[in-house]
Amino acid sequence: MPSLRDLGEFEVLRRLAAARPTPAGTRVDAGDDAAVLRAQPGRDLVVTTDAFVEGRHYPAAVLAPAVLGARLALANLSDLAAMAASPRWALLSMGVRPEHDADDLVRLEAGLAAALSAEGAGIVGGNLAGVEGPEWFSLTLIGEVEPGRAWTRSGARPGDLIGVTGSPGRAAAGLRLLRQIGDASTVEDLVPVVDAWRSPACRVRAALDLARIGGATAAIDISDGFSGDLARLCEASGVGAQIDATAWPPDASLERAAGRLGVSVEELRFGPGDDYELLLALDPAEWSAQAQHPGVTIVGRFTEAPGVLTIRTADGGERALPAGGFDHFGG
Amino acid sequence: MPSLRDLGEFEVLRRLAAARPTPAGTRVDAGDDAAVLRAQPGRDLVVTTDAFVEGRHYPAAVLAPAVLGARLALANLSDLAAMAASPRWALLSMGVRPEHDADDLVRLEAGLAAALSAEGAGIVGGNLAGVEGPEWFSLTLIGEVEPGRAWTRSGARPGDLIGVTGSPGRAAAGLRLLRQIGDASTVEDLVPVVDAWRSPACRVRAALDLARIGGATAAIDISDGFSGDLARLCEASGVGAQIDATAWPPDASLERAAGRLGVSVEELRFGPGDDYELLLALDPAEWSAQAQHPGVTIVGRFTEAPGVLTIRTADGGERALPAGGFDHFGG
Repeated sequence: MPSLRDLGEFEVLRRLAAARPTPAGTRVDAGDDAAVLRAQPGRDLVVTTDAFVEGRHYPAAVLAPAVLGARLALANLSDLAAMAASPRWALLSMGVRPEHDADDLVRLEAGLAAALSAEGAGIVGGNLAGVEGPEWFSLTLIGEVEPGRAWTRSGARPGDLIGVTGSPGRAAAGLRLLRQIGDASTVEDLVPVVDAWRSPACRVRAALDLARIGGATAAIDISDGFSGDLARLCEASGVGAQIDATAWPPDASLERAAGRLGVSVEELRFGPGDDYELLLALDPAEWSAQAQHPGVTIVGRFTEAPGVLTIRTADGGERALPAGGFDHFGG
Repeated sequence: MPSLRDLGEFEVLRRLAAARPTPAGTRVDAGDDAAVLRAQPGRDLVVTTDAFVEGRHYPAAVLAPAVLGARLALANLSDLAAMAASPRWALLSMGVRPEHDADDLVRLEAGLAAALSAEGAGIVGGNLAGVEGPEWFSLTLIGEVEPGRAWTRSGARPGDLIGVTGSPGRAAAGLRLLRQIGDASTVEDLVPVVDAWRSPACRVRAALDLARIGGATAAIDISDGFSGDLARLCEASGVGAQIDATAWPPDASLERAAGRLGVSVEELRFGPGDDYELLLALDPAEWSAQAQHPGVTIVGRFTEAPGVLTIRTADGGERALPAGGFDHFGG
């Protein structure tokens, strides 16, 4: 278990580079001053960056290095999924303590590279800096999309359906369980919600399938929480939204987790959380006319009232949607 | 002077985005899940990432925010210069304390954006995370180059000339002066070396000019120190190098700084330091036959002895080149 201090920066970088596959379209790899990449002719680039800070975005020592790496990949892949883009290349910038186990760092990058590789992407460069305080890992992900085919947040129209992938709320439940009861959260009936936070599903393929099917008018990933990100999409599109409380698929794991945590399913589902799921605006005529994607649940409809978000309950009543997303500096 | 905690993450991101120009070729800006960019047809991409950590890469409170931002831009621009690439787009990932002044953060990003803009590039996205320990700023820079025209580290041949831009050693002297005597380092006769560290010159245009002229067979930036980076280029190319001690241009500022610090000019020139200058391998026939670039000094020649780096002194003697570059985890 040599530390980074034992090996030195350049030897660590050499080991990291040797342990990962070189993705397609790479002309010059990370061993030079910069990487040289060849995109497919005629494609636009789609770029995003997201970072995890120890203690803030992940409780120290709860995640195995490879799982943390995969999760960072997923956070960035989710942004490209929300643009209907194909992931290609990534750069990993890290701040790690000198006593960090070099083998653990190789495992972290291997987990990250494997998660990228499953979606056709890979690491082509990075930076390794020493820190004394909390460690951090910042990924930049580059993808491609056909010109004019990227989804944005601004295309939703009144009457469009609101679709969502997965079962939002699980990640928030999983993280709370990990924080409150630690290892006990691996008891069998709670594994799905803990895994939803720890090892989220990737929605890139669902997004690319949906983009082929057509009918999506806008998209956002709900990595800050369903209500907060729905509000952002509504703001960008100049519309409102009405959510149907009865339209959500039953989720026994989420209900059990809510019971265990002493909170409502709604608080988990609509409040702050980092589900890497997609929220979509779908043209209702196109959606009903064609092969509907099985991974998408229709949970409401966009309305003409800008910024007004409501929820219609089983008894026919309508009230304001519980609001709020995650703010890294808020209380 | 509102803090990030006062304003919240999304308002800070909004202010940052509003304060910066949108670079050419941007189809969808940072307000969405990802940015959409259009490269020039037929160009390869060149990508790099470099980060500054408070206390490690810059002494806290020595640099004004705009100067720190510009310096981070320069560190990344230098990597693209070493590939003869044209900078286009950047993403800034940051870890900042909640009590950080939001206006200072806007100033930092403005300084960064201005330095990029001077070279035809701009910021298209980023990420803002909260940290409790040292702050950090990680930039990813994307550029373009004609296919097959990027310089690498591996093309130097025995007999090629060794060229260098600027006057290596100044940055190391400047940082040491700032650390040892603080404000006194702004005394007039030392300003050039302090500025070489604080506000380095950008070599992107020199690189693009040289690429047009032709004759360069390899390049590297010497951001870890002349000897260390020369050794890396020699390793990648399978060659050695002989430096001519008498070939360097006189540098009165560097000599004054060395005297003040009680070290030799050679220690500053060849040792660890972060000059963002270019080290080039140049075909001797092409170099002598054509318009030579005025910003490049020929300081030696590559040899057939792999990994052997020597310096030839004024008295005709030859000895090993003082070695070593900066290691972020080394002693």
